[in-house]
Amino acid sequence: MKKKKPVRKTARKGSRKPAESASRVALKGTIAKGMRKAELRHVPWNSVAVETLNPLLGRHFVVGQNIMLARVLLKKGCIVPEHSHPNEQLTYIAAGALKFWIDGREIVVNAGECLTIPPNMPHKAEALEDTVDFDVFNPPRADWMSGTDAYLR
Amino acid sequence: MKKKKPVRKTARKGSRKPAESASRVALKGTIAKGMRKAELRHVPWNSVAVETLNPLLGRHFVVGQNIMLARVLLKKGCIVPEHSHPNEQLTYIAAGALKFWIDGREIVVNAGECLTIPPNMPHKAEALEDTVDFDVFNPPRADWMSGTDAYLR
Repeated sequence: MKKKKPVRKTARKGSRKPAESASRVALKGTIAKGMRKAELRHVPWNSVAVETLNPLLGRHFVVGQNIMLARVLLKKGCIVPEHSHPNEQLTYIAAGALKFWIDGREIVVNAGECLTIPPNMPHKAEALEDTVDFDVFNPPRADWMSGTDAYLR
Repeated sequence: MKKKKPVRKTARKGSRKPAESASRVALKGTIAKGMRKAELRHVPWNSVAVETLNPLLGRHFVVGQNIMLARVLLKKGCIVPEHSHPNEQLTYIAAGALKFWIDGREIVVNAGECLTIPPNMPHKAEALEDTVDFDVFNPPRADWMSGTDAYLR
């Protein structure tokens, strides 16, 4: 009878963040999902599959170690329901316009404009036109990487 | 004879990062320089003065708490001399093309492409065309905020 391989109960040597290591393994090789590793990578946007979250909303992203840059494509009328996240966000609208409901205000962010959003500040948005939006996050959005972003689907 | 003012040998009370605190005070109120505070801010790029670093190189940036997004305008032929920094970098070329010398390789990053650059990895770049480059940094570049970026000037 073969001996069972013993279950490893202790953390691996040098592995202070087992959860992250696990996600690294799971995501290995998937450029679209990104890797939480600081490495040199040349990534054309057209090499990263656009994920269709709903008929009006597409998204892809590039992830470094502590930075995520997402390219979000919203059709006119697309609504991003109110949500919040612990990640700091910096939004840059390259084309189109997004109307935000945030901190008791309504702010229209047009092409060529940025919005800095502090961690944990609830916000909702609507695309007033077909829009190309770049979102920077620190740290990267774990919910986006794992697909547990039900509010968008 | 006047007594010499004693040299302060201890850190100021509550000041764990004296350089950063000083720079915060110096930069207070200047949107162009940004503030290391997580706050909601709506910032059109055309409201942030473009700093001319040399005749071929202009730059402005928006800074959150841990994110900096810089918009860098390079004329064809502009050379960014080899340098490195502890900040993680993610570059997105919106228009034009940048040729990088990095990690023993030559990589041309064209419009619509990204390059992730790990902390402390030396790199040099040349604009092959007039280029609009967005650089994301974590943490924000203290040398850019304080103007101690002599390699660009």
